[in-house]
Amino acid sequence: MKITLAQLNYHIGNFESNLRKMLDAVTLAKEEGSDIICFGELATCGYPPRDFLEFRDFIARCMDSVHALAAAAQGIAIAVGSPCVNPVVEGKDLYNSAFFLFDGKVQHISHKALLPTYDIFDEYRYFEPAHEFSTVEYKGKRIAFTICEDIWNVGNDNPLYKVCPMDEMMKDKPDIMINLSASPFSYDHAESRISAVRANVSKYGVPMFYVNHVGAQTEIIFDGGSLVVSPDLQVFDEMPYFEECIKTYNLADVQKGGINNEQQKEKYRLMHDAIVTGIRDYFGKLGLKKAILGLSGGIDSALTAVLAVRALGAENVWGVLMPSEYSTGHSVTDAKDLAVNLGIRHDIVPIRSVFDVYEGLLNPLFEGKQADVTEENIQARIRGMILMALSNKFGHILLNTSNKSEFAVGYGTLYGDMCGGLAVLGDVYKTEIYKLAAYVNKDGEVIPLNSICKPPSAELRPGQKDSDSLPEYDTLDPVLFQYIENRIGPAELMEMGFDPAMVNRILRLVNINEFKRFQAPPVIRVSNKAFGAGRRLPIVGKYLS
Amino acid sequence: MKITLAQLNYHIGNFESNLRKMLDAVTLAKEEGSDIICFGELATCGYPPRDFLEFRDFIARCMDSVHALAAAAQGIAIAVGSPCVNPVVEGKDLYNSAFFLFDGKVQHISHKALLPTYDIFDEYRYFEPAHEFSTVEYKGKRIAFTICEDIWNVGNDNPLYKVCPMDEMMKDKPDIMINLSASPFSYDHAESRISAVRANVSKYGVPMFYVNHVGAQTEIIFDGGSLVVSPDLQVFDEMPYFEECIKTYNLADVQKGGINNEQQKEKYRLMHDAIVTGIRDYFGKLGLKKAILGLSGGIDSALTAVLAVRALGAENVWGVLMPSEYSTGHSVTDAKDLAVNLGIRHDIVPIRSVFDVYEGLLNPLFEGKQADVTEENIQARIRGMILMALSNKFGHILLNTSNKSEFAVGYGTLYGDMCGGLAVLGDVYKTEIYKLAAYVNKDGEVIPLNSICKPPSAELRPGQKDSDSLPEYDTLDPVLFQYIENRIGPAELMEMGFDPAMVNRILRLVNINEFKRFQAPPVIRVSNKAFGAGRRLPIVGKYLS
Repeated sequence: MKITLAQLNYHIGNFESNLRKMLDAVTLAKEEGSDIICFGELATCGYPPRDFLEFRDFIARCMDSVHALAAAAQGIAIAVGSPCVNPVVEGKDLYNSAFFLFDGKVQHISHKALLPTYDIFDEYRYFEPAHEFSTVEYKGKRIAFTICEDIWNVGNDNPLYKVCPMDEMMKDKPDIMINLSASPFSYDHAESRISAVRANVSKYGVPMFYVNHVGAQTEIIFDGGSLVVSPDLQVFDEMPYFEECIKTYNLADVQKGGINNEQQKEKYRLMHDAIVTGIRDYFGKLGLKKAILGLSGGIDSALTAVLAVRALGAENVWGVLMPSEYSTGHSVTDAKDLAVNLGIRHDIVPIRSVFDVYEGLLNPLFEGKQADVTEENIQARIRGMILMALSNKFGHILLNTSNKSEFAVGYGTLYGDMCGGLAVLGDVYKTEIYKLAAYVNKDGEVIPLNSICKPPSAELRPGQKDSDSLPEYDTLDPVLFQYIENRIGPAELMEMGFDPAMVNRILRLVNINEFKRFQAPPVIRVSNKAFGAGRRLPIVGKYLS
Repeated sequence: MKITLAQLNYHIGNFESNLRKMLDAVTLAKEEGSDIICFGELATCGYPPRDFLEFRDFIARCMDSVHALAAAAQGIAIAVGSPCVNPVVEGKDLYNSAFFLFDGKVQHISHKALLPTYDIFDEYRYFEPAHEFSTVEYKGKRIAFTICEDIWNVGNDNPLYKVCPMDEMMKDKPDIMINLSASPFSYDHAESRISAVRANVSKYGVPMFYVNHVGAQTEIIFDGGSLVVSPDLQVFDEMPYFEECIKTYNLADVQKGGINNEQQKEKYRLMHDAIVTGIRDYFGKLGLKKAILGLSGGIDSALTAVLAVRALGAENVWGVLMPSEYSTGHSVTDAKDLAVNLGIRHDIVPIRSVFDVYEGLLNPLFEGKQADVTEENIQARIRGMILMALSNKFGHILLNTSNKSEFAVGYGTLYGDMCGGLAVLGDVYKTEIYKLAAYVNKDGEVIPLNSICKPPSAELRPGQKDSDSLPEYDTLDPVLFQYIENRIGPAELMEMGFDPAMVNRILRLVNINEFKRFQAPPVIRVSNKAFGAGRRLPIVGKYLS
């Protein structure tokens, strides 16, 4: 038996495009003499469809795609993920299902039992979990279909669910496990994915074919890396990361095993490729081409520009330098050097004249009050305004250049440097920014060394440095990481050896700035806990604040 | 037996304040000779605690409050909602529980079985559902405790769950049902709440004591309206809306029944009171006092100002008029009249001088391009900038004045009139704005009639009217309501008689503007489907767009 895995880049709600891609893959698989081709979870509509699932029309269009695929399932079987109406009145109205199609018809439907409802996942919001389990007999082989999370309760010290669907299906003695997934990227996820698949093969003793999505849906990046694990627990194949791939496997070869194609992975390469994918698909799926961003001469905007150029091409990225009276001479030079290195259009729009008019306008109301953060915010907002004006006039989308450390402690101006359609580096801590910049510069200086080496500064008042307002990033980031990624509270942080006063200060900063993050752009998610849909906190909360 | 219900205004994560309120209520109930006092769902920490629940420290502090209440449970029993650690390794780590405290100790814990995971609710994200059910024997009476959603599967045509917890508990033949709730307001929710409680009393034949939260947690408003329903299905008592209330009932009287205290409800009075509560608690719980807003002379900003004055007092509301060359003379007069009616500080800051400088600065880059929406957005952003500068300098929080129709179709400028800490009218359609304004003016003209009667206009270009860009609101709002509140898709809308071209145009506008709403301020929720946490849609979706 030949089994094809199709690791595709779907687009949420774009039924035509998703179906066309799948039909093309079916044609290819037929040419290769495949017996069955497998697509990802909810492949008809893309993942995550979110509240579109509440529209009957949306579900009907998913079913139209299923039926179109069924019609194409002649001489080949097709396994595809799609929502499915729950015929029973009690419980949620939908299942998250794997449709097995053959001979022009839907032959079998398996429902997902384990519904991830944590971080960015909201599946219990929409779906009823499967209560019954069955397998499929096809060409003399028995296949157990599972969907994504269904296999993640195995080999887990703190299982989130009380059942393991494969435990139930083992009564049928399946020959093969096929898992249709939509498993998003984080820089540490591929390892756990391989472990989970291996744990299942180890426990159940049959090979697993695991097919993932690839490509970005705003914040969420699917990295691909689809897997075939043979009964000897070797990674028979691991598909490429961040690109589409359609590949056919001979089951006999997989069962024999003895081949290991596990890939090397490196955090900053993965992060880099994920962000480039995130930018490319954000623009591509919204039908956009061109980006604009402010270039301050600092490392964050420089790195954002590089990633944008790699995603969209130099001809589609426009850098704007907006020096103020507090900008150092170096800032302009460094920004220019970067633009020249990248070959992108750049313009200089000094903000002093606008600032002066605002000052004149507001001074009568400021009634002799001292200059404070207000004046700093005005400068940041003038820059946001200029960028948005150019964005509106020319249709370039503004890229936000804030990093995760800044978002965490609220070191940024709402409607100023927090503007943008997409926060490219919003899930990358400042200390990681340096490492990502080093990765970018590995084959030669793209980001000027001066942008990397100088002390970080917002340059909104004379001689200002980030470290005037914040702990040094080397001190700040480890606390943020433990608090945000690992949900470690104050007492435990202090037990870990972090300074109590600093812990209290940092946690307070994080918590009182929820109101700012609420209005931040969507953040490309590269860690296992990004700001945005995966981290939900109340604005009026009074905890640690 | 005497039963006290305590309908309190909790504050998320403010353990000291929540505990103090509850202990004060216990003292009061003891003075009234009560046998048991009941607080709301998750009362120790406030609702919704969201991802704070992922911190061990947060749960420990909830348990500290439970133990402090247990210590006070001398001569009186206490029922209080709080998270509870799930001792079993399989499944989620927490339960959402009702603690029954007496004689200084935790005597019994009932867990919630039905975990709402829809709209603004994410309970399955945190909690394991109860799998076992038991009742409590106290002073010769058997009590069945349920938590909020647990009773909502009864009397429901499309039940979301497969079990009804009370069905299980009826084997113990309970004498009383007590439900600890945190059931948020929408203008049509009180009726369904009474129906749900009545359906339970009718099905199980014993009286129900239902205690709710009151007060706002950013977007979410709890309206109170706690209920006592006697076995004859009469509403023995319905507590006041939008205020705290502690009241003791004699069980014998309730069982006898024959008394109906059901309140009259009127949509716009409820909406008005909910929004005033929303503003008051947003400021109060964040430790803030003063608000600022732009007054355009239009109905939306006028209504926002009135509601702010009612929530915060005239001395704490500051109106800023920012006329441009396209503002009509009436606009300034109408805004001034309103400010005088309300007795609030108001200032005039014309925006022309700033606009001219931006134009001079950007013209070289605009390369002879025609004026378009860019110039309109610049004006809106100058206003946002001025308001934010005053907000930063004086610590007044900016109130956003956008309405739901505008948010829906993206008729607003990001970082311009979409700025603000709280969107006061963001869940009120334009056609409802008029009715709410009429309610505000019922005892005399507060909002100038001219602001109500003139055609809506953004006044960003000569002679502009909203109806140049949008269908008339009488046409627009019914389609939006069916699409947003009722999730009716295009084909069904056309079947309902709406014009196909208009339906397609409106739905497309809603869907392509997801990116704007993503960065909108939190919206005070008054309907059953508000923009924000209760409505989750992908930005890169290609559905109906």
